[in-house]
Amino acid sequence: MYSFKNDYAEGAHPRILQAMADANMEQSEGYGLDEHSLAAAQLIRARLGGDPDGVDVHFLCGGTQTNLTAISAFLRPHEAAVATNTAHIFVHETGAVEATGHKVLTVPSTDGKLSPDGIQKVLDAHPNDEHMVKPRLVKISNSTEIGSVYTLKELEDLSRFCREKKLLLYADGARLGSALASKGGDVTLADMRRLMDAFYIGGTKNGALLGEALVIVNDALKEDFRYHIKQKGALMAKGKVLGIQFEELFRDDLFFDLARHANAMAQIIAGAIEKAGYGFLTPSPSNQIFPILPNDLIERLQKNWAFYVWSKIDDGRSSIRLVTSWATKEETVREFIKEF
Amino acid sequence: MYSFKNDYAEGAHPRILQAMADANMEQSEGYGLDEHSLAAAQLIRARLGGDPDGVDVHFLCGGTQTNLTAISAFLRPHEAAVATNTAHIFVHETGAVEATGHKVLTVPSTDGKLSPDGIQKVLDAHPNDEHMVKPRLVKISNSTEIGSVYTLKELEDLSRFCREKKLLLYADGARLGSALASKGGDVTLADMRRLMDAFYIGGTKNGALLGEALVIVNDALKEDFRYHIKQKGALMAKGKVLGIQFEELFRDDLFFDLARHANAMAQIIAGAIEKAGYGFLTPSPSNQIFPILPNDLIERLQKNWAFYVWSKIDDGRSSIRLVTSWATKEETVREFIKEF
Amino acid sequence: MYSFKNDYAEGAHPRILQAMADANMEQSEGYGLDEHSLAAAQLIRARLGGDPDGVDVHFLCGGTQTNLTAISAFLRPHEAAVATNTAHIFVHETGAVEATGHKVLTVPSTDGKLSPDGIQKVLDAHPNDEHMVKPRLVKISNSTEIGSVYTLKELEDLSRFCREKKLLLYADGARLGSALASKGGDVTLADMRRLMDAFYIGGTKNGALLGEALVIVNDALKEDFRYHIKQKGALMAKGKVLGIQFEELFRDDLFFDLARHANAMAQIIAGAIEKAGYGFLTPSPSNQIFPILPNDLIERLQKNWAFYVWSKIDDGRSSIRLVTSWATKEETVREFIKEF
Amino acid sequence: MYSFKNDYAEGAHPRILQAMADANMEQSEGYGLDEHSLAAAQLIRARLGGDPDGVDVHFLCGGTQTNLTAISAFLRPHEAAVATNTAHIFVHETGAVEATGHKVLTVPSTDGKLSPDGIQKVLDAHPNDEHMVKPRLVKISNSTEIGSVYTLKELEDLSRFCREKKLLLYADGARLGSALASKGGDVTLADMRRLMDAFYIGGTKNGALLGEALVIVNDALKEDFRYHIKQKGALMAKGKVLGIQFEELFRDDLFFDLARHANAMAQIIAGAIEKAGYGFLTPSPSNQIFPILPNDLIERLQKNWAFYVWSKIDDGRSSIRLVTSWATKEETVREFIKEF
Repeated sequence: MYSFKNDYAEGAHPRILQAMADANMEQSEGYGLDEHSLAAAQLIRARLGGDPDGVDVHFLCGGTQTNLTAISAFLRPHEAAVATNTAHIFVHETGAVEATGHKVLTVPSTDGKLSPDGIQKVLDAHPNDEHMVKPRLVKISNSTEIGSVYTLKELEDLSRFCREKKLLLYADGARLGSALASKGGDVTLADMRRLMDAFYIGGTKNGALLGEALVIVNDALKEDFRYHIKQKGALMAKGKVLGIQFEELFRDDLFFDLARHANAMAQIIAGAIEKAGYGFLTPSPSNQIFPILPNDLIERLQKNWAFYVWSKIDDGRSSIRLVTSWATKEETVREFIKEF
Repeated sequence: MYSFKNDYAEGAHPRILQAMADANMEQSEGYGLDEHSLAAAQLIRARLGGDPDGVDVHFLCGGTQTNLTAISAFLRPHEAAVATNTAHIFVHETGAVEATGHKVLTVPSTDGKLSPDGIQKVLDAHPNDEHMVKPRLVKISNSTEIGSVYTLKELEDLSRFCREKKLLLYADGARLGSALASKGGDVTLADMRRLMDAFYIGGTKNGALLGEALVIVNDALKEDFRYHIKQKGALMAKGKVLGIQFEELFRDDLFFDLARHANAMAQIIAGAIEKAGYGFLTPSPSNQIFPILPNDLIERLQKNWAFYVWSKIDDGRSSIRLVTSWATKEETVREFIKEF
Repeated sequence: MYSFKNDYAEGAHPRILQAMADANMEQSEGYGLDEHSLAAAQLIRARLGGDPDGVDVHFLCGGTQTNLTAISAFLRPHEAAVATNTAHIFVHETGAVEATGHKVLTVPSTDGKLSPDGIQKVLDAHPNDEHMVKPRLVKISNSTEIGSVYTLKELEDLSRFCREKKLLLYADGARLGSALASKGGDVTLADMRRLMDAFYIGGTKNGALLGEALVIVNDALKEDFRYHIKQKGALMAKGKVLGIQFEELFRDDLFFDLARHANAMAQIIAGAIEKAGYGFLTPSPSNQIFPILPNDLIERLQKNWAFYVWSKIDDGRSSIRLVTSWATKEETVREFIKEF
Repeated sequence: MYSFKNDYAEGAHPRILQAMADANMEQSEGYGLDEHSLAAAQLIRARLGGDPDGVDVHFLCGGTQTNLTAISAFLRPHEAAVATNTAHIFVHETGAVEATGHKVLTVPSTDGKLSPDGIQKVLDAHPNDEHMVKPRLVKISNSTEIGSVYTLKELEDLSRFCREKKLLLYADGARLGSALASKGGDVTLADMRRLMDAFYIGGTKNGALLGEALVIVNDALKEDFRYHIKQKGALMAKGKVLGIQFEELFRDDLFFDLARHANAMAQIIAGAIEKAGYGFLTPSPSNQIFPILPNDLIERLQKNWAFYVWSKIDDGRSSIRLVTSWATKEETVREFIKEF
């Protein structure tokens, strides 16, 4: 049964596997100091615009690990992160950030995004008062946990606001490829560099076996960061496993091509569902869509396709989550939309 | 320049790469619930003797991560680990265990091993006194950080002692393969199961790209362990990347064959060095040896070979560390020993 | 200017000061093992009904400290506390619980209380899923942060629910005296023992200089608790400073008399305000009341009296917080109500 | 039976009790913002020399609490404290510093003191290597845990060394009074300010019921410190309880007079023991002495006096610990030395 449950069901893009095979018997330095990791970092820096030496790039194994390592390194003990109430770090990381000692303050959100208004409410509720945590780091996800994508204007507003308020702006980019490659999207990697203090470029959900590239832009956050990676258990002995993959993803446009393909597959499905007269939980130009369907239709779909039922809408309807990836074939998608 | 610096310079054994390529386009469950991870766990259980359902097997990405996840899950806040003063968790993990809140108490050791006598000294210094931490978990490494290997008798003595004193016994098995496959070694995986409360079987340093298999034997330590893996950022989305590798390592004797090869390569070198009249820091039947050599010889070696100078012995001599792996070729080793 | 800002503006009840003076030159054991602490624990046990040896009593310096020490000792790393969104531990303790590694999950509440229904919603949102924290400890405050008091029926329902769901039930009793002594209140210390797994009896806000008595009822939570007190910096060298105070509070009915007085003073004010035609944020029989007043009246009051403006109700009205204590004199209260 | 077991057996100096009684019914601001705490901070600042506004003074309840709050506020997650292997934070605080996530690195010491040489060895063992923690804060105790006292020269050397090496220098001053008032001692509070980044002035063991005054000199360590005090549960609601006591101790020379008296009492005993022909574990001019006595003499003393047997010296002799305090009477001491 074909699964639209997530974008990490398959392995890696064949070019990545090939690159790993090619480099297999090379002897490399350990712990991310190998030539592939260094080259991959340079390729990413070249995409970020500006002075390539102005940013640090680190490779870590997974998203939760990157979030907890970065946030705990960036904050002092009394400082808190601000996120939406649907944020992965708030709901789906088993309290990983809190386990490093930091509270996550939330802003209710229906579209998965944070705005200056929402953050301002958190600031208002946390005046300069030592009986409360101090909001210090704003964490967004792009694309968000429910498929939406920030516009350039939204990111610029957030960035300006955060700098005014002395808040750090950090983006969880588990699906950053999908956001950057989304149709109508106007954000580039160079924008991310310009507007964020730090962010990560997700590999696991965009064609790699594993791996996320953390980009640290703000100089104040760079010092000794490798100590934090090691302390949190995120420094791989065979660091080149990560380096080789990102080298291949950024050697040309592979990273973006894979994301574009994933998005296109989801949009074919979305188009068919819309045409069939159904709505969506939230507009999504990315590789995750959340159509609202009659329960009996959902039951019928479940006979031949795997996916998550997301939320109950009313007595007769529910939303479901459909996720496509670099590995989703168009013929599969064409087959699927015949159901509508 | 050929490197004897460590056993993680190359990638994975070709059979492992092939298995990953073969399974690449399968759609699998995420987070270690895929068929490969389940099969790998079964293969490992079958090697452990006794009731296969009596142990839990979890796959994590690396050694530091496995140590910090296990130790912090096993201990209450006031409880401490006991290790040698040369232990990886004490010296080389950037305080990862302390970062989860637990003190590491140490026993001085010249051969890298812990004995009941040494642990008893720690217990004597920590009577039932709430002003001190409570020693609760004994952490050994097998093989040790300096290449030595525990005998069955030593492990049985440790195990009996720990059970009498209500101490948990946990083994860091980053190089467990090397220990089990060492010449003259009399310890089996079934012994490990019988004698330890938990231990891990290291893949990263024995032919895998990455991955360690944590085996939890003691029922009291099993509950909710996957929550801890997730919280520490160690639960891989594409968990099958770990499962496939361990499936291949334990499908037949590959895991042991690779370790045996690594040991044999080191022992060829050790034999030649001994024959040349030089001694060693500590006897080692494993894939790490620490010969003591004249400084001028070391300088000569450094022209053509890469390795770490370990410690100063006296004005004219130092110890060096030479590490072999599954990937070390006998012809390379034969070439190297011509230097002596 | 007389202050109704809180119940910790003055020092200690004169009888307590006298007891401290009387015992001043005795030589006592340190760290809470002195005869006064032991006697105070016995006096408290005698009030709890049942087998006096069935509970452990520990004295700590303050409420935040007691909460963080107890909660971090009671929970495993992946387990979370559940509280109202107005709870002190969630809002006003600078993330003290999170700083020990545990998430605080919240239930929206308008009256400051938790109910089985509210907790069930948290359980529903946290099914047995290792990607989320595990709700494990329910934390109530009695009286609550907004002055309300649990009925016996409410506590019995909570207790039954928690036991069914394997949740620990813990009460922050910073103002437990006020709750137990409240007019119409039907809860006793014996009920607290019967229904809670642990709770604390607040001294600081009920006549002591400082000090809270933590009562641990559930056997599973007792072991090694003094280690946790010490580790969190809460074990006083001169522990008798706490023991003497609780000995005096529970030698007779002083603890309850002081609470009853504080409540009575608040209720005189509440009666007058009600008679003047104003309402309240929430009904409160305790020593904290939250009348809703016209802003111009508030401004007039502020000329002669100190108190906190709590929340904006609408353009013309706000709620204020008025707190009385054992030290509030009836003549002061009579003077104050002339304002209405 | 009279006890020389510690310097916290009695309550507070009568002048302190009187001051607390005098201020008892004043209404004060909570959480250390009361007039007494502010006045006490000013009195302490006046003793420190230099610009009184150049230092921050905070009052906390106890020594372990002060150490863990300060050290965890001052360090980033990967940074470690350096102390002697006899240091209170390493041995006798139940891993309180590690519980906040930080390793304590140790230097072996026979006299309880740290020197630049010893710290340099720790630095040498921790080169700029992300696999190890980063030594960052040097923690001394003055007087030390075994009664010795730093000379001005020693502190100046330490301070210069730490500044050169970018290490923070922090002094645990649980018995700072005794050190400053020791016969032959040449260190003043002004020296402490000049040479330390932060230190605390212990009240609990020098005449107060409880309380330590933390002095932060280094501007980089001052920001938001009250948040940390609150988060660690160390911010007292009735903060004036601490303020009043330090106000009284520093209103005149009471703090120093009490320490001088304690020292004098210990030195009378030390003189008698020396005259009787016995030696000491280490020279001590402070209120803690560690004579080495024959076991049969120790047994005889134990019939009438309470004290701790400290360590076994040989088959016939042990060291004992004798501690005097502000409350020790000369007549008691005269009676005691008749035993020799």
